[in-house]
Amino acid sequence: MNFDTLRYRSGCLELLDQRRLPGNIEYLKLRSAEEVAKAIREMAVRGAPAIGCAAAFGIAVEAMRTRHREGFRGEMEKAFEMLSKSRPTAVNLFWALERMRRILDQVEEQDEVAMLLEKEAESIFEQDIRDNLKMGENGSALVPEKCNILTYCNAGALATAGHGTALGVIRSAASRGKAISVVACETRPFLQGARLTAWELEMESIPATLICDNMAGYLMKKGEIDLVIVGADRVAANGDVANKIGTYTLAVLARRHDIPFHVACPTSTIDPDTPNGEAIPIEERNGSEVRGYNGIEWAATGISVRNPAFDVTPSELVTSLITEKGVIMFPDDKKISALLAS
Amino acid sequence: MNFDTLRYRSGCLELLDQRRLPGNIEYLKLRSAEEVAKAIREMAVRGAPAIGCAAAFGIAVEAMRTRHREGFRGEMEKAFEMLSKSRPTAVNLFWALERMRRILDQVEEQDEVAMLLEKEAESIFEQDIRDNLKMGENGSALVPEKCNILTYCNAGALATAGHGTALGVIRSAASRGKAISVVACETRPFLQGARLTAWELEMESIPATLICDNMAGYLMKKGEIDLVIVGADRVAANGDVANKIGTYTLAVLARRHDIPFHVACPTSTIDPDTPNGEAIPIEERNGSEVRGYNGIEWAATGISVRNPAFDVTPSELVTSLITEKGVIMFPDDKKISALLAS
Repeated sequence: MNFDTLRYRSGCLELLDQRRLPGNIEYLKLRSAEEVAKAIREMAVRGAPAIGCAAAFGIAVEAMRTRHREGFRGEMEKAFEMLSKSRPTAVNLFWALERMRRILDQVEEQDEVAMLLEKEAESIFEQDIRDNLKMGENGSALVPEKCNILTYCNAGALATAGHGTALGVIRSAASRGKAISVVACETRPFLQGARLTAWELEMESIPATLICDNMAGYLMKKGEIDLVIVGADRVAANGDVANKIGTYTLAVLARRHDIPFHVACPTSTIDPDTPNGEAIPIEERNGSEVRGYNGIEWAATGISVRNPAFDVTPSELVTSLITEKGVIMFPDDKKISALLAS
Repeated sequence: MNFDTLRYRSGCLELLDQRRLPGNIEYLKLRSAEEVAKAIREMAVRGAPAIGCAAAFGIAVEAMRTRHREGFRGEMEKAFEMLSKSRPTAVNLFWALERMRRILDQVEEQDEVAMLLEKEAESIFEQDIRDNLKMGENGSALVPEKCNILTYCNAGALATAGHGTALGVIRSAASRGKAISVVACETRPFLQGARLTAWELEMESIPATLICDNMAGYLMKKGEIDLVIVGADRVAANGDVANKIGTYTLAVLARRHDIPFHVACPTSTIDPDTPNGEAIPIEERNGSEVRGYNGIEWAATGISVRNPAFDVTPSELVTSLITEKGVIMFPDDKKISALLAS
């Protein structure tokens, strides 16, 4: 990889500002939980695992910033509160904060706990890379020797600590010599496919084609797509998958055309406390994102706007769940709880 | 209507430049077939019936321009050639040119034929408005008293001589006092929904909400869409429907959610010479449209692009075909040929 999605230098989280890609490679330097929460909220960083890592580092930088203060515990509570409210759907955020919380609660001494929080954030980060590489290995087995893979949004190195989930599987399969080409959907309104996935694939020299989201059905009908691989923001206990808005539509189309529909995510994205997709909170973002892009508005000014950021794909449409612990075909409650217990 | 999509003043076609909407209301003044062909190609005018009208006026202005020349017949041949190559999918273009051709072939005297060509173009234009009003009347019967209608692209006054096809049905139903709200898909890459449909609905004061194309499945799954009405660029003899790219996806989603999927078009959009959807030529447009919008490119620069402008919805997914001659439920070969013969 020629870039870091996030990197940590004592007391400072450096975050590749994904709003400015692919045109500009710029790192935000964040030294408080408030700054990190803002970066998550405004999508300077996005992608469930990357949000989890960023939140963990948000706690670490806050601890480093306030460790010599009297109000340390109070500041840390505020930091947890702020970060947990930054985005509602991706469960990795809450999973990472939970891990950080356990450290905070274990140790009294402020300097010591700050160092341990730093260490825990780094461990979450490193685990994510390891998990993605393992997921890539596990998922490669599902990828034919020669195929055209449709992917959605960005579930790549930019959505994680590195390597990626869906794009990690594609990377791993390509590095094993498989003849892969990728169709990337642009992914309105934030254009993660056009800007981020296209950029990553170009750097990897994996042949790729960009389409508008509404063209996927056309290509499937023409027999040009062999399989679909996407990431996830939260997987419920029954295997329902919340992912970027539009994923459900791809799953419905894939089913109509008998195309395998794979979901790649670390087990930290699976939430056993969410029984099914109905229970997953779906973020509605500001309508200005739909009215145009990046400050340019092309829509007629008087119209109302909806902007749900995610949708839920029922598990019955999911061919497999690819995780670092293994692959589950046709996921359901039992298979998922067995996987989590393994 | 507070605007004309196209209007004719002796020897000059004035065309509302739809590339500049909704921000600017500007009319192109076109005095040759070449200028009209360029306007069609570059989508200053779009929508199957409007393209048909523009092409007819393209022949009329060319006849007026060259009627006193020796090479009149040669110039007219070139005009037909140029206009027929301007866009391949919408059949109204060829239907209108065919009508103009019959006039040209009937009369020897140049001045006289030029006048007759003007008259024929005006008659095509007026027929289109009449057909749309009739279609609106026929289609209204399918629209519940209170409902949320999803529409796609722009099949409104801007896509026709006036009133519109799909949007014409919505207009007619609303004017009968039905409590209608509309969900408009933005329709990438040219954004006809965000720019044109939103603008028309605003002027009509019909409550409307804009979404990205990838959000339609989410709203259908939540039970927020009662029916879908779209236009068409060409309907094959068996009822397969070519329309703006993404229409097929909506039809697949509508079927999954048991939502009626209606297609509104004049019988001039039905092509008995095209046996089925496979035989409809699908235009692939320049990739720059997908890389961004209106000169701004946001996609990673190295990636390839596909840009099919239309897709085909098989007739089995079509609930009804709404035409000026009447409504066909579950269209097929027999019902369509009976309708055309009626």
